[in-house]
Amino acid sequence: MAYEILNEDTICEYLLGIESVREYFSGDALVASEIGDGNLNFVFIVKSLDDDTKALIVKQAVPYLRCVGDSFPLSRKRMSFEIRALQSYYDATPSYTPKIYEANEAMSLVVMEYLGTHIIMRQGLIDRVVYPQFAEHISEFLAENLFKTSSLSLQSSAKRELIDQFNSNRELCKLTEDFVFTFGFMPHETNDDNADDNETAQSLFDDMEFKKQVLKLKYKFMNQTDALLHGDLHTGSIMLNADETYVIDPEFAFVGPFGFDIGAVIGNLVLSYVSHFYRSGDEKYQGYLLALIQTIWNEFEKKFLLLWDAQKNSSLIIEGYIDDATRQEYQSEFMRGILQDTVGFAGCKMARRIYGIAGVEDIRGIEDKQMRRSAEKHAVEIAKRFVKEYQSVESVEDMMLLIGASGV
Amino acid sequence: MAYEILNEDTICEYLLGIESVREYFSGDALVASEIGDGNLNFVFIVKSLDDDTKALIVKQAVPYLRCVGDSFPLSRKRMSFEIRALQSYYDATPSYTPKIYEANEAMSLVVMEYLGTHIIMRQGLIDRVVYPQFAEHISEFLAENLFKTSSLSLQSSAKRELIDQFNSNRELCKLTEDFVFTFGFMPHETNDDNADDNETAQSLFDDMEFKKQVLKLKYKFMNQTDALLHGDLHTGSIMLNADETYVIDPEFAFVGPFGFDIGAVIGNLVLSYVSHFYRSGDEKYQGYLLALIQTIWNEFEKKFLLLWDAQKNSSLIIEGYIDDATRQEYQSEFMRGILQDTVGFAGCKMARRIYGIAGVEDIRGIEDKQMRRSAEKHAVEIAKRFVKEYQSVESVEDMMLLIGASGV
Repeated sequence: MAYEILNEDTICEYLLGIESVREYFSGDALVASEIGDGNLNFVFIVKSLDDDTKALIVKQAVPYLRCVGDSFPLSRKRMSFEIRALQSYYDATPSYTPKIYEANEAMSLVVMEYLGTHIIMRQGLIDRVVYPQFAEHISEFLAENLFKTSSLSLQSSAKRELIDQFNSNRELCKLTEDFVFTFGFMPHETNDDNADDNETAQSLFDDMEFKKQVLKLKYKFMNQTDALLHGDLHTGSIMLNADETYVIDPEFAFVGPFGFDIGAVIGNLVLSYVSHFYRSGDEKYQGYLLALIQTIWNEFEKKFLLLWDAQKNSSLIIEGYIDDATRQEYQSEFMRGILQDTVGFAGCKMARRIYGIAGVEDIRGIEDKQMRRSAEKHAVEIAKRFVKEYQSVESVEDMMLLIGASGV
Repeated sequence: MAYEILNEDTICEYLLGIESVREYFSGDALVASEIGDGNLNFVFIVKSLDDDTKALIVKQAVPYLRCVGDSFPLSRKRMSFEIRALQSYYDATPSYTPKIYEANEAMSLVVMEYLGTHIIMRQGLIDRVVYPQFAEHISEFLAENLFKTSSLSLQSSAKRELIDQFNSNRELCKLTEDFVFTFGFMPHETNDDNADDNETAQSLFDDMEFKKQVLKLKYKFMNQTDALLHGDLHTGSIMLNADETYVIDPEFAFVGPFGFDIGAVIGNLVLSYVSHFYRSGDEKYQGYLLALIQTIWNEFEKKFLLLWDAQKNSSLIIEGYIDDATRQEYQSEFMRGILQDTVGFAGCKMARRIYGIAGVEDIRGIEDKQMRRSAEKHAVEIAKRFVKEYQSVESVEDMMLLIGASGV
């Protein structure tokens, strides 16, 4: 069918035209409510009126940026990339990917499993919830999806086909270039009001060494095609409970540097860690977060290397080319490179959330203004160290030192 | 028209159906001869029987590797990439690009200016010809084409469109991955017989540090999208005389790392330099070649930076983001990165020409077997140093030291 923007009144009829959805609801009457709180799209929950255990999520892209309105046009083709990424994730890691009932690129729409017992991780972290399975889950999600879409695994021609599939996600890549790597580090109309008349903001905007290093990372973002990335993997793109973890919202998906997704996860966990100096003073929870960060990296590295060890023959390293000891040395230098990029990207992701558009609730939600300013300063200090020193990080311990040596 | 393989008998009639060609020959009778000596395609020279100043070149791709035959299928789509690259070169640097009279992707065919007073550079170097304009020309060609197709100049979305245009040149990229970065460094059926029972070949195949470094460069080749590359810019892809320089045969064109093209030029000049220890003992000509290598880098860097300085606003660095001094620091670190990659890729390109398929005449054409083996050893030594030490090169002088400290 031709593209049409759905609303609470029209969506149920539309859904009943889809066989898999009809089967799921087995003929029940339906009711829809719009629940989207994101920046880009409309999101509906559609529930059975006859069986309150049955519900699905419908996400539809509109041809503009939702949080601004139709004065900010943005191609709805972004949904095609989200659909393709979800399908790729479902193939590699079905346990961490919502089940898809319908994906329609023409309608820029996807119908997915409703995660009724899961919450957005950012909120969980604010509420100091401990997630005993998260490190295991997210490290597996990252290792599987990054490894399997990289040149370490894919044949060279399959890798180029993958690039073809995502290379047109230009508008969203441009948003990242602007909002993650640029505008939040200089006076800009899109920045938050908290940047005005603020010493820490000024110290960030004036820190030329930081900004030079950001350029290196931005250049990598623009020109390094390691693997299929989620592209926006902060704690607001993760839904979880004690037992299960789901990654959602990959509309920024594209083929880019390994460290960008891992850095997004870690940078946002560091922001939560910092926030709890001012929100709760809960040292135990902070200790949990620091351990979590370290475990995520260590588990990611372990799982990634296991996958790599099992791949004896690839376009990059054909069997018999190199001896085992040298292969291991190469792998270990390769992983150090991913760690360095991870730290650098984590720093960019943290720093841009402080004064740029779309700040994080962890920090901006601190009600006391003085406390909030202290948290901002603390976060900016860690972010600056991450970005300025990413190239000299040799181990996860070095990264932890950059977090800890915060002068607080 | 549908694709059809042309031959000496059918090509003239085909050409007379093309208006621009008919005009060029103004109704003269034509004669065609096949003159291709390359590995991939058929090349015809088509001459006027009435006016011996008039001739054109026709290059047609066949759906297999010409030097092997139809048992080695290779998509003729490669000609589409050659056509697109030639058009891009003609836009940026018409003085160094043969004029195109007809480009037909369906026929996998291009009709070009005949370079009647120019010779293939590799032969000129064997004959010890001095080219006073070459450094100026090739540095301009490289600076203009690399800069203008990079993220330093193109808007982010235009850059991704460029990638779209060349990303399907998969088969030829795979040939490079295999033949430039892999097979020539291990026992392989495609290697030259000279690899058998040869100490230097064995020392190359056994040098794990070298091979580990090659993997880093191969990974960059596969995953770094700096700019549109020629992809095969050795001295056999350059036609010139004292006054003019033309770059031909860009069928390997794709979007890859800056240093790959510059490294191809420099690596092949180093091979010529080495060959003259054994071919001619002509120290003066060797001095010319060393100066030429240094000048090419210096002029490339100067021209590239001039273009960059003129580009005040780009997707990477928007105006007002950074102060001038820091911008210069960033640029200078960026250029050092290109130089390092150049040295690394030059080393790969040199090393693979010694024992791999398609060796270079400069070395393989040395008739005395002992002399040839000495030349091979000498070339391999420099190539190893280039590849093992590329990451610590800080200046063009460092590169010259790696050439000179050859123990000869």
